Amino acid sequence: MASSPTPISFLSDFGLNDEFVGVVHGVIARLAPEVRVIDITHGIEQGAVRSGALSLLRAVQYLPDGVVLAVVDPGVGTARRAIALETVRGYFVGPDNGLLSPAVAMVGGATRCHALENSEFMIPSAGATFDGRDRFAPAAAMLASGQAALEDLGPEVDPAALTPMLLPLPEIEAGAVVGATWWIDHFGNVQTNVGPDDLASIGLGLGDQIAVTIGSTAHELRLVAAYGDVPTGNPMLIVDSQGLVALSVRDGRADQALQLAIGRPVTFQSAQAESS
Amino acid sequence: MASSPTPISFLSDFGLNDEFVGVVHGVIARLAPEVRVIDITHGIEQGAVRSGALSLLRAVQYLPDGVVLAVVDPGVGTARRAIALETVRGYFVGPDNGLLSPAVAMVGGATRCHALENSEFMIPSAGATFDGRDRFAPAAAMLASGQAALEDLGPEVDPAALTPMLLPLPEIEAGAVVGATWWIDHFGNVQTNVGPDDLASIGLGLGDQIAVTIGSTAHELRLVAAYGDVPTGNPMLIVDSQGLVALSVRDGRADQALQLAIGRPVTFQSAQAESS
Amino acid sequence: MASSPTPISFLSDFGLNDEFVGVVHGVIARLAPEVRVIDITHGIEQGAVRSGALSLLRAVQYLPDGVVLAVVDPGVGTARRAIALETVRGYFVGPDNGLLSPAVAMVGGATRCHALENSEFMIPSAGATFDGRDRFAPAAAMLASGQAALEDLGPEVDPAALTPMLLPLPEIEAGAVVGATWWIDHFGNVQTNVGPDDLASIGLGLGDQIAVTIGSTAHELRLVAAYGDVPTGNPMLIVDSQGLVALSVRDGRADQALQLAIGRPVTFQSAQAESS
Repeated sequence: MASSPTPISFLSDFGLNDEFVGVVHGVIARLAPEVRVIDITHGIEQGAVRSGALSLLRAVQYLPDGVVLAVVDPGVGTARRAIALETVRGYFVGPDNGLLSPAVAMVGGATRCHALENSEFMIPSAGATFDGRDRFAPAAAMLASGQAALEDLGPEVDPAALTPMLLPLPEIEAGAVVGATWWIDHFGNVQTNVGPDDLASIGLGLGDQIAVTIGSTAHELRLVAAYGDVPTGNPMLIVDSQGLVALSVRDGRADQALQLAIGRPVTFQSAQAESS
Repeated sequence: MASSPTPISFLSDFGLNDEFVGVVHGVIARLAPEVRVIDITHGIEQGAVRSGALSLLRAVQYLPDGVVLAVVDPGVGTARRAIALETVRGYFVGPDNGLLSPAVAMVGGATRCHALENSEFMIPSAGATFDGRDRFAPAAAMLASGQAALEDLGPEVDPAALTPMLLPLPEIEAGAVVGATWWIDHFGNVQTNVGPDDLASIGLGLGDQIAVTIGSTAHELRLVAAYGDVPTGNPMLIVDSQGLVALSVRDGRADQALQLAIGRPVTFQSAQAESS
Repeated sequence: MASSPTPISFLSDFGLNDEFVGVVHGVIARLAPEVRVIDITHGIEQGAVRSGALSLLRAVQYLPDGVVLAVVDPGVGTARRAIALETVRGYFVGPDNGLLSPAVAMVGGATRCHALENSEFMIPSAGATFDGRDRFAPAAAMLASGQAALEDLGPEVDPAALTPMLLPLPEIEAGAVVGATWWIDHFGNVQTNVGPDDLASIGLGLGDQIAVTIGSTAHELRLVAAYGDVPTGNPMLIVDSQGLVALSVRDGRADQALQLAIGRPVTFQSAQAESS
């Protein structure tokens, strides 16, 4: 399938203080010296499959066609499958725990899936398997370099039987949109799962004052188009660079200013509606 | 202009815990697969334009000729310009907020400058622009791969009209050099903006005992040539590897031992002069 | 020797918040543009030569043949030598402080060694030498690109005269194995210097309940083959992916659960033996 080498885009929860990430790079360089590796991030919280899935979902459309190697794998050493999926954008390699599912769906779904069970393409370990090193990296290197085809890696798996990642959708109820915070970025911006279309469905758009209720606290924030539309230090609602509604503070951290964490419910409604 | 691909050297305040840096790498790899990217650092404090400018200034002479992509951009989403500059060492791409200015001056100044306003070389965003991804990365990829010339990216800007970065110079007054701390490195070394020439102008040189006053505290430190010239745990003054006078502790952290932060005034004078 | 360019695998204690690592990459790219650099890790604790040596030891068999560049160098600016070693797997470049020794021994030892004293292959510094940048990176670039041979870099040194790294070996005494904790990874797994062969020598193997004494605290843990062999939240002994006995907690952090630090003695014996 892959006649010329393609890049590998690599995401994990390995952190950068150990040699884990370097060892995976090393394994790939030994097996496929001509393959380039792009690090998406290795800062996913340990074992946080959903955070990893969301990060990969946000990144995937910007990655080069080729192989995505993603490892957030709290089930390593259990019966969970190791898989490689084929999509129109290339291959996805990782654990079958939902980590890959949203990104794979975003690029149109999997056309084929095989379990990584052919020991010919695994590195023997002296003890417990470090699957990132021993199983996922070799599979990614084989696919990216074209040294193996998907079907060489192990038995076929029905893509419909893979572990899904259930991502909560916002709900519209009684003139309000009820969503949730699902990412806080490096700058303290708090992304929700609510899109501008959801707000439009209750008549809210750019420039409107919106009542945002988080727990027992209500904030009245304006939905703006750019960070520069509010004075320094002020909070705002903004459709962020992934197209989702986020709470931000100009030149500040919304997570701290508004005391927000990931996974909190957030209700949006017209500020007039609320006060009337 | 660029007939064969040149590397891109990339500095930002994006951190490594999100996928921001990976997405920028991805955008470059999609647009210019043959271009190599060198990460200078992504650990600049969020929005700290001066820290970013100093880091780039320290690094620039060691970077390969090609494109420097630097993004520390608290003004994203305001009217500040996005620019690309031509120098004898290659191109510099980033916000017009002073971030690039010291490094550009170090390599001899800009010969030409264009604003990044040609939407043909931008990635459309579903919401607010993430300029690192949507505007700066594509411009850097175009310049590094030679797919676009500087003048294709947008209207010409007079380099003299760019935002400068004012860096404080040390002052010589009454037999003393008054400078400031302006960087604390990973090892706790505290760099000042004072050079050995400044100390020489008041008669101080290698081996001299120097009275160093920080706030209301005075230390008597010797100016040495190498870390090994003082016993373990002892503080010293040293002309560091960037050629600036730094406060260091052998096998220790000067920032902690001497309770130093960035931006504090520091006065140097002869220890004899002070005590007399 | 090196006719076609080989990769450089790079480990340091420089951290990623400064431009140090980027500058080393830049120096290599300027001198040897065709040489690829793989970052093993730059998160070694500052000046922790033993931690760096252990990290390199764990990684080395997974790295591509070529050049290993390792810099954890608290003695920079003292009389300690800068060296390059030849092995059957390629070259090792770094300070002569024991950092390289375990990894070099692992790949079969050094066949030749030269001190990095030829100033033709050093970058002049305005002040104190930053050896990573000025001496080690140029040497690695020369060797990886084949622009210089080992003997061009400086005078020959007897490999037997290099600084060793003494790593404590576990001891068998009175039916017990006495070892030490020597690494805590990103996931909180606590690796010891004890191997399964050591446990076998006192009759212990997979599935056995083992009494593990740390300071005045004793834990009874089972030696299992995979993380999934104990319930979530439970501690275990496991032969880890480097083939050493480690204390782990399924989906948790053993360092926190068992209050463990690096360098603590750990005694293993049969749980029956202990209670009898």
